[in-house]
Amino acid sequence: MKILGLDSSGLVAGVAVVENDILLGEYTTDYKKTHSQTLLPMLDELSRMIDLDMNTIDAIAIASGPGSFTGLRIGSATAKGLGLALKKPLVEVPTLEGLAWNLWGTDRVVCPLMDARRNQVYTAAYEFLPSGDDYTMVNIIPQAPADIHEMIDNINEIGRAVIFLGDGVPVYREIIEENIRVSYAYAPAGCNRQRAAGIAALGALYYGMGKTVDAAEHQPEYLRKSQAERESE
Amino acid sequence: MKILGLDSSGLVAGVAVVENDILLGEYTTDYKKTHSQTLLPMLDELSRMIDLDMNTIDAIAIASGPGSFTGLRIGSATAKGLGLALKKPLVEVPTLEGLAWNLWGTDRVVCPLMDARRNQVYTAAYEFLPSGDDYTMVNIIPQAPADIHEMIDNINEIGRAVIFLGDGVPVYREIIEENIRVSYAYAPAGCNRQRAAGIAALGALYYGMGKTVDAAEHQPEYLRKSQAERESE
Repeated sequence: MKILGLDSSGLVAGVAVVENDILLGEYTTDYKKTHSQTLLPMLDELSRMIDLDMNTIDAIAIASGPGSFTGLRIGSATAKGLGLALKKPLVEVPTLEGLAWNLWGTDRVVCPLMDARRNQVYTAAYEFLPSGDDYTMVNIIPQAPADIHEMIDNINEIGRAVIFLGDGVPVYREIIEENIRVSYAYAPAGCNRQRAAGIAALGALYYGMGKTVDAAEHQPEYLRKSQAERESE
Repeated sequence: MKILGLDSSGLVAGVAVVENDILLGEYTTDYKKTHSQTLLPMLDELSRMIDLDMNTIDAIAIASGPGSFTGLRIGSATAKGLGLALKKPLVEVPTLEGLAWNLWGTDRVVCPLMDARRNQVYTAAYEFLPSGDDYTMVNIIPQAPADIHEMIDNINEIGRAVIFLGDGVPVYREIIEENIRVSYAYAPAGCNRQRAAGIAALGALYYGMGKTVDAAEHQPEYLRKSQAERESE
C-alpha cells in the first residue's frame, strides 16, 4: 500500500510517501514562503528523486485541519486536484493526530498545541497504548479550540506526565509553566511540528480501515469560523 | 545555533537543517539511487527552498558510522568538503544514536538494528531519562557489531520492554520473534530508519558541549573491516 501525505496546516509545508512500513521520501520546510509556492514544487521534486509514478499511489492523505485557513485551503485544493486527476480517494487525517503521532511510543500524555491567537489553541490529548508488536494511538481529549488555561487545567486533571508540542509551545510557554502541576517536557526539533510522514502513516492506517472520502467531497475542518466571518457577524 | 545534518549511512539519504528547536527543513529519500546522485542535489534543492546561506551554519553534523562503507564515505566526503570550504567544524554523531533519537520520549529500551549481513547487526541500546522539561538519551549497550542472537540475549537480560528499529528488523524479524522474551514493538514508517533531523538535533547537543572535530581530521567509524580487507587478510 502506497500513501502520499500532505500537510500545509501551519507554517510547515510537508510531503511524504509511505509504502507499507517504509518512508520512501519526505520533504519538509518550515519557512516563511507561502505554501502555494512550496507544496507542489516540493512534491514534484520528491517524485522525481524517488521515480514516483503517481498512478501507483493508493490514496492521498491530507492534514484536514484545524490549522491556518489559507494553509488548509492550499493543502485541500492540492489533495482534491490530485485525487480528481488520478482518480484516487483522499484520507482526512486530523492535524492534531498527525502532530501527536510524532511521539509514537511514549508512555506520556501527548498534548499538541496549535496557536490560534488571543490565548486560544487548537488542541487535543492522546496516549499510546501497547498493542501486540505495535502501539495504538488513543484520543483522550477530542480536538477543539480551547483557552490555553482551560487546556492546562484539563491536563492537570488527568494527572499524568505530559509532552507538549506544536507552534503553540513558544507562544504559551510562560502560561504553561505558571499553571502546570504535572511533569512535562517539550518535544525537540524534528518531532515538535507537523510532519507529512505522520499524515501518510496515519493515512495508511485509515485507508486500511476503509476510512476514505471522494476527492470531490473532501472539505477541510476549520474548527471555528474565519476572522472575516466572525467580524461580518 | 544552526546545524546542518547529513546521513547516508544506509539506504536512506537525508539532509536537514535545525535552528534551535525548529527543523527549518528536511529532505529524506529511501530509494535505490546511489548517495552520490542524491545527497548533494538534495542539499542544494533544500537550501534554495529555505533560502539557506551556508555561511550562517555553525557546524555540519554527520552520521559517522557504522553503516554501509560506500554510504559512509560519500557522507563523510560531503561533510569534509563542506566543512573545509565553509571553514566550519564537523560534529560526528554515531549512526545508531541518530536512529535511537527517533524514539525520543519513549519509556522503553530502544534497540536499533542495522543489517551487517550473515546474522550480524550493528547495534546498541539506549533509554530516554526524563530530565527537567526534556529527556536525556543514555547509552545502555555500546554500539558494536554483534550476532543477532547475542543481541537478543542482551535485551532479554535487561528484562524491559523494547522497541526495535532499523533495516535489520525486516531481515531478522523471525529470529527476533523466536528468541525474544520481553514485550517488544517495531517502530513504524517515519521513525524506523535514519533521519538527518536526528543527526542535526544530536549534532546541536554535541556542538553545545564543544564536541566538534576539524573537517580535515574527521574519519567515518566503520566498526569493522571492509569485505575486501577481510578477504585480503
